[in-house]
Amino acid sequence: MGDMRKKVVAVIGGHRCTPEVEQLAQKLGKKLAKVVEILVSGGLNGTMRAVCQGFKAGGGLTIGILPSYNKKDANPFVDIIIPTGLGLARNVLVVKSADVVVALPGEAGTLSEMAYCLQFSIPVISVDSWDIPGVIKVKTIEEAVEKVKKLFPAKRMKARAGSRKMREKRSSA
Amino acid sequence: MGDMRKKVVAVIGGHRCTPEVEQLAQKLGKKLAKVVEILVSGGLNGTMRAVCQGFKAGGGLTIGILPSYNKKDANPFVDIIIPTGLGLARNVLVVKSADVVVALPGEAGTLSEMAYCLQFSIPVISVDSWDIPGVIKVKTIEEAVEKVKKLFPAKRMKARAGSRKMREKRSSA
Amino acid sequence: MGDMRKKVVAVIGGHRCTPEVEQLAQKLGKKLAKVVEILVSGGLNGTMRAVCQGFKAGGGLTIGILPSYNKKDANPFVDIIIPTGLGLARNVLVVKSADVVVALPGEAGTLSEMAYCLQFSIPVISVDSWDIPGVIKVKTIEEAVEKVKKLFPAKRMKARAGSRKMREKRSSA
Amino acid sequence: MGDMRKKVVAVIGGHRCTPEVEQLAQKLGKKLAKVVEILVSGGLNGTMRAVCQGFKAGGGLTIGILPSYNKKDANPFVDIIIPTGLGLARNVLVVKSADVVVALPGEAGTLSEMAYCLQFSIPVISVDSWDIPGVIKVKTIEEAVEKVKKLFPAKRMKARAGSRKMREKRSSA
Repeated sequence: MGDMRKKVVAVIGGHRCTPEVEQLAQKLGKKLAKVVEILVSGGLNGTMRAVCQGFKAGGGLTIGILPSYNKKDANPFVDIIIPTGLGLARNVLVVKSADVVVALPGEAGTLSEMAYCLQFSIPVISVDSWDIPGVIKVKTIEEAVEKVKKLFPAKRMKARAGSRKMREKRSSA
Repeated sequence: MGDMRKKVVAVIGGHRCTPEVEQLAQKLGKKLAKVVEILVSGGLNGTMRAVCQGFKAGGGLTIGILPSYNKKDANPFVDIIIPTGLGLARNVLVVKSADVVVALPGEAGTLSEMAYCLQFSIPVISVDSWDIPGVIKVKTIEEAVEKVKKLFPAKRMKARAGSRKMREKRSSA
Repeated sequence: MGDMRKKVVAVIGGHRCTPEVEQLAQKLGKKLAKVVEILVSGGLNGTMRAVCQGFKAGGGLTIGILPSYNKKDANPFVDIIIPTGLGLARNVLVVKSADVVVALPGEAGTLSEMAYCLQFSIPVISVDSWDIPGVIKVKTIEEAVEKVKKLFPAKRMKARAGSRKMREKRSSA
Repeated sequence: MGDMRKKVVAVIGGHRCTPEVEQLAQKLGKKLAKVVEILVSGGLNGTMRAVCQGFKAGGGLTIGILPSYNKKDANPFVDIIIPTGLGLARNVLVVKSADVVVALPGEAGTLSEMAYCLQFSIPVISVDSWDIPGVIKVKTIEEAVEKVKKLFPAKRMKARAGSRKMREKRSSA
């Protein structure tokens, strides 16, 4: 069943950001949509808004996991809103919903999310974001997308390897 | 923006259920998919599994908000898994994500979710489930689907009424 | 170790209440402090404030598990504030922290907490509150305190019975 | 009212730790109990157990905010158990309950808690723990206790300054 599930990426980053990071986030979103079906984010503005906008432009589906109960807090590029009302505890849900996480520059909130990735052993790719041991550091969003792409096929190859093994087993029987 | 959002229904009910309720849940799911785009549920088995199966058969998209961190706890008819790790506190998220909730027979967990609906002023339709003041009681799933349908157009009519008002304003200007 | 732990009661009820219920809650708090060491509540006003006031007057320690992050939301009779920021999801924590729960009249929030008690198999005593199957119904706060008293010694008697059994085992050896 | 509240410190650190850190934690707990009334921690073993043991030996009251629903997961030096069932989302509650936080060496969980401190603007003192901008770095537990002491009297001095002002106001009237 696991391999049939839709692929999910989370992008994390500040709810305020410079115009440069905003542009990067939008571009990242658009490129990720070619590789992954679903984008999870915190659903608010800044980096989150830009990446959602890009991901939708690229044809993907966006989920926003809000800290508040107010669906209106979601940026307009969120398709599915989960208004948790959990405050910052919702950070856990953002990363745990994803198969792989990309971190753009952000402050302490982004750091807490990266720390959760490490705790859950979810691969986290840092594009000029916090530098902590265990994080996959890249310099450009192109590299980030490449890393995401590689992390997903790895799984499918494992699955195929598994079935080859089974075929061999059968043929040797 | 609000009117452009996808329509979301939550269906709640026991994670164990009789074959009769299971069949009902599946039928309900299928019929709801004709009216609403997204189904949110607790993502587990019993009633949740049956309603997801029906909703997918009807062409809808299903979201499962799990109590655990384990995506494998989701039933196979969940498209998007939110593995909250929040235990029973995830009940809040299930109902708060929806515009309208349908309750099938269930135990205390279902009751807590219905109580949250009342607290959030989310309309909750009870099909042979808990009978508490404020709940909309119906006898059949057909009636439930009718109620859901009515609750949604109501919003759109309001929107249209609003624009008519605006047109009148303009023409009288 | 279990028997050495401090005994904890939770009292639940509306954050608005009539002067009569307020008086009842205060009296209940004072009487409970003679039987139990720690009172957990939602920490806000109305019933919660009154029961905290009574419990402190009776010499007990009060814990308030707030829905917000703001310690100032706690009523002045809360000794220890847990500002969860979890919204209504904090209801789970209020009852799960307790060994036994007393429910005074309240609305949907109180109902969700009683439902959680049933789900966790925590005994819940209803004084003129919601009447749902599985709840222990009493008519006066004196009866409620009696019930609480009985629920606690039961544990200790079991412990003693256990040690008697051990003594018998030893002497028969 | 704020100044009458009991003073609360949280100590964070790994649930596994070396014998050296364990000893440090115990000593830190004992010393903190001379300065602060209540210790909040994650309630589990390792660093948490050692600091609770020390704090109780020093005469303080300990609160353990557990990730699970199981009170038995608490170490034996926890006086008051909050079994949240929230998983790692309980990290938010641990630091938000405190006025000041001391971080001992720990892994990603500790890092997420330090990040939350920064987000909430709760002072966090790092004794050989993660080094992130905004954290107060010290080298010994004695220095940590000094820092905690200084952070608290600051508040009281402000209060006293306030009352002096009032006296002056009155005398000048």
